[in-house]
Amino acid sequence: MSRTRIFAVGQLGPISLADSKEAAVARLIALLREAHGRGAVWITFPELALTTFFPRYVYDDPADYDRFFEEGLPSPAMRPLFEVARELGIGFYLGFAEKVVEGGETHRYNTAILVERDGRVIGKYRKIHLPGTRDPIRKANFEHLEKRYFEVGDLGFRSFGSSVGRIGLCICNDRRWPETFRVMALQGAEVFLLGYNTPTLNIHHPEPAHLREFHNRLSLESAAYQNAAWVMAAAKCGAEDGFAMIGGSAIVAPTGETVARASGEDDEVISYACDLELGAYIRRSVFDFARHRRIEHYGLIASQTGIVIPEDEPAAGDAGETGKAAE
Amino acid sequence: MSRTRIFAVGQLGPISLADSKEAAVARLIALLREAHGRGAVWITFPELALTTFFPRYVYDDPADYDRFFEEGLPSPAMRPLFEVARELGIGFYLGFAEKVVEGGETHRYNTAILVERDGRVIGKYRKIHLPGTRDPIRKANFEHLEKRYFEVGDLGFRSFGSSVGRIGLCICNDRRWPETFRVMALQGAEVFLLGYNTPTLNIHHPEPAHLREFHNRLSLESAAYQNAAWVMAAAKCGAEDGFAMIGGSAIVAPTGETVARASGEDDEVISYACDLELGAYIRRSVFDFARHRRIEHYGLIASQTGIVIPEDEPAAGDAGETGKAAE
Repeated sequence: MSRTRIFAVGQLGPISLADSKEAAVARLIALLREAHGRGAVWITFPELALTTFFPRYVYDDPADYDRFFEEGLPSPAMRPLFEVARELGIGFYLGFAEKVVEGGETHRYNTAILVERDGRVIGKYRKIHLPGTRDPIRKANFEHLEKRYFEVGDLGFRSFGSSVGRIGLCICNDRRWPETFRVMALQGAEVFLLGYNTPTLNIHHPEPAHLREFHNRLSLESAAYQNAAWVMAAAKCGAEDGFAMIGGSAIVAPTGETVARASGEDDEVISYACDLELGAYIRRSVFDFARHRRIEHYGLIASQTGIVIPEDEPAAGDAGETGKAAE
Repeated sequence: MSRTRIFAVGQLGPISLADSKEAAVARLIALLREAHGRGAVWITFPELALTTFFPRYVYDDPADYDRFFEEGLPSPAMRPLFEVARELGIGFYLGFAEKVVEGGETHRYNTAILVERDGRVIGKYRKIHLPGTRDPIRKANFEHLEKRYFEVGDLGFRSFGSSVGRIGLCICNDRRWPETFRVMALQGAEVFLLGYNTPTLNIHHPEPAHLREFHNRLSLESAAYQNAAWVMAAAKCGAEDGFAMIGGSAIVAPTGETVARASGEDDEVISYACDLELGAYIRRSVFDFARHRRIEHYGLIASQTGIVIPEDEPAAGDAGETGKAAE
């Protein structure tokens, strides 16, 4: 028995610093309509999909960067997107900069929400693996200041029930850490949605540019395969005011195979008829966690943050044993 | 400052049920000499490298399958390999079936050892993620009875200091579980060694044959990339008495790039000049575990074995929130 539904990914080309949020939302709506026309029930949009990737710039005063943030759900800028999505009955993932007052204090997060086909917000995730720095490093003509503008997310990695399956959310750099997906899969996630803004140039350490997309793809494919889940990954890409970011938006099957992939660096919809039963079948066989995982040997993953070199000791049962034959 | 040393992988073609261990060891020695001739300081051999992959056959009486097992280190069959390796000053990883009496009881494991260039056994690993079944499933003309012949390993995932770097060991199916490599990396492993025997036909669930090698490669590349470590993976491959196994032995760089790969399904050496500093550099930057891992969000990985669907609740801060714009 298959459980097939069409999922779409809406890749965005560049958003200029000078562009309005209204213009960005109009582009998201166009992608959403295209996805709906293909029969999609859900669309995944990029990280920080309403503005340029502003963490590349240095601002000191909240008054100068508050304009990149959203308040309320839907925020005024998002409202037209919510309206059209509900009208068409299509769910979506949207990444944006969130400003919120909680406990009398203002907090800012790099956030993604999950909006059900009837318009309800059914899930929220705040980015945990924030890359970059708090202070400028002055190594290139741009920065990567996510730690300056955002707090580390406080909602954990979760899965959310929806009308189209159980969904896990993460954002960009989270995809490089296998723990992200495993924690969501252990809560039953069968589809992972994520958006990203990945500069083509890694300003923190030099590496060949082609590795940026290779690592994106390797991360997505291994996330899918290791957890027998579908992956929807949406890039914001191309050159934003001269600063290049990778594309490579993709839909990956639970077998780890990339089954759809954006070919350019501009606005583009990709879609695929995804059978969620394929993943469920694999999770009952080769990757049946309950039968095969050996958590008694995984303790360090959750108990030790950094590397600790053990004191060397002989392996059990071979204390001091040597290759006698060579004596 | 680079720390470059040549590592080799010695892939084995088929070993027939009728072949003697002496013949298998002679082939291992030929591979070892070839590796040494290329300047290699270490060679990785396959899982169960001294015999055919006997878990494909059904035996009931230990008297019928004890001949596949080794006792003592080095066992009599291994002795010539230890001798030549020590003479040439080359270290090695060797997989074999281990029979051992501990605490008055006989135990059998699917084991790998790490032998230092001076002949000392400096590490041992007993396979933890045993695939297959205890009882025959009668779905094909062969079985996969690792759970029948071996106990689950009791030594955990460890790293071992050696004269050529800090090494982590695992075996075959372990490579499909990202926890394997993360636990070893958290103990400082900078090179992962593993051997495998992977049937081309998955008898547990049908899947296209090409996915078997794709999953092998995806597992190796993601293990390397996610942990910024080198990977040495050695297949026993080709048709053993008509039962086909995949090849694809590989050396993977800490960037996730496969830098050397066996091209056939017979005895073959591949080698590469590996700079361990490349991985160390990445572990100080993008994958600096101490700075970037968020273990407060990884708890489920070590505390929960199977999937548990959470009771759905609204995301924090959005209790019952709906898309007001659509009202």
